[in-house]
Amino acid sequence: MTEPLDVAGLQRRLAEFAAARDWQPYHTPKNLAAALSVEASELVEIFQWLTPQESERVMDDPASAARVRDEVADVLAYLLQLCEVLGIDVLAALDAKIDRNGRRFPAP
Amino acid sequence: MTEPLDVAGLQRRLAEFAAARDWQPYHTPKNLAAALSVEASELVEIFQWLTPQESERVMDDPASAARVRDEVADVLAYLLQLCEVLGIDVLAALDAKIDRNGRRFPAP
Amino acid sequence: MTEPLDVAGLQRRLAEFAAARDWQPYHTPKNLAAALSVEASELVEIFQWLTPQESERVMDDPASAARVRDEVADVLAYLLQLCEVLGIDVLAALDAKIDRNGRRFPAP
Amino acid sequence: MTEPLDVAGLQRRLAEFAAARDWQPYHTPKNLAAALSVEASELVEIFQWLTPQESERVMDDPASAARVRDEVADVLAYLLQLCEVLGIDVLAALDAKIDRNGRRFPAP
Repeated sequence: MTEPLDVAGLQRRLAEFAAARDWQPYHTPKNLAAALSVEASELVEIFQWLTPQESERVMDDPASAARVRDEVADVLAYLLQLCEVLGIDVLAALDAKIDRNGRRFPAP
Repeated sequence: MTEPLDVAGLQRRLAEFAAARDWQPYHTPKNLAAALSVEASELVEIFQWLTPQESERVMDDPASAARVRDEVADVLAYLLQLCEVLGIDVLAALDAKIDRNGRRFPAP
Repeated sequence: MTEPLDVAGLQRRLAEFAAARDWQPYHTPKNLAAALSVEASELVEIFQWLTPQESERVMDDPASAARVRDEVADVLAYLLQLCEVLGIDVLAALDAKIDRNGRRFPAP
Repeated sequence: MTEPLDVAGLQRRLAEFAAARDWQPYHTPKNLAAALSVEASELVEIFQWLTPQESERVMDDPASAARVRDEVADVLAYLLQLCEVLGIDVLAALDAKIDRNGRRFPAP
């Protein structure tokens, strides 16, 4: 039976994956935050020499589309693992943040 | 009526938020990837001088817990907006990546 | 008497500065690399929503010019401190790298 | 005749290198800042799963020492190129920053 494709299910798969490989000692919040930022930079690297217009078409090329998909997956993987070890509900955190931003940047 | 608290609902709220403020011209994939990496680094900044052990206790202090929650929300916000403009299903991308990682790093 | 304004002199001032404040225990290579990347991202943040053309004019505004100068100084500060603790001659490392790049990307 | 091994000389070599390959159109301040942050993250990647103690010994292994040297060179290369296109004297910027930091963090 497969896990449902949602944040909680993916978080569980990632936790089991790390546990099966004894990776938990490496997964301190500090290390996971660093790994997250490294993956975010690998995403930036794809775009670094592109014009804004070229960056809009990055998914047109199958090889670069696969690379982008791979890197966004890595970013989400570390974000979910970080939130898991810190006990943060990331969806609730974003929901609350959008509310705060609504007050900070009122729509015209 | 509130949006359901899931990735699709948050992605919709973020898209409406940006549209209401005419931010779309700024939201090129290149700029969103840069913004994502900047937020990931703000998360790293919280941990940069902490020992691994101190990093485990970062949620014990209400002020630093709020800061961490704020930054993970920002990372997810830019990740979802990037995936939105690129037409990427980020949950499916991570699901596929975990499968690939399972083949790349077989459990002992 | 002032130190000469060169890399070795700045490196010495930075080392004395950290020693006088007992910051050495924090200055592990791992932490300094993280701090360097955080400062590099603060530089990216200045440019993140600018067009390529606007980014060319960032020094025209005194406030943003000061901010850029401040961030490049921070990047260099952590780079020199990292090289100091690792015993790396950063100028020699770049010199060797330009030679390697000359072989890797032959001029047309 | 070789260039002297100092910041000005390296900056000149980098400028000639880029000019000979017609890379200047890519070298907007925005792109160079992004490239700098990507290289800084490649440095972080070397350290991301290491303990603080292991990170102190990273130069003991010739392969990882070469990798570190390579990445610090890349960081300096993009930092110098960014300062070149922006007309910033990076050594003077750091000198001024250390002075400011001395007032901000008085030694005990």
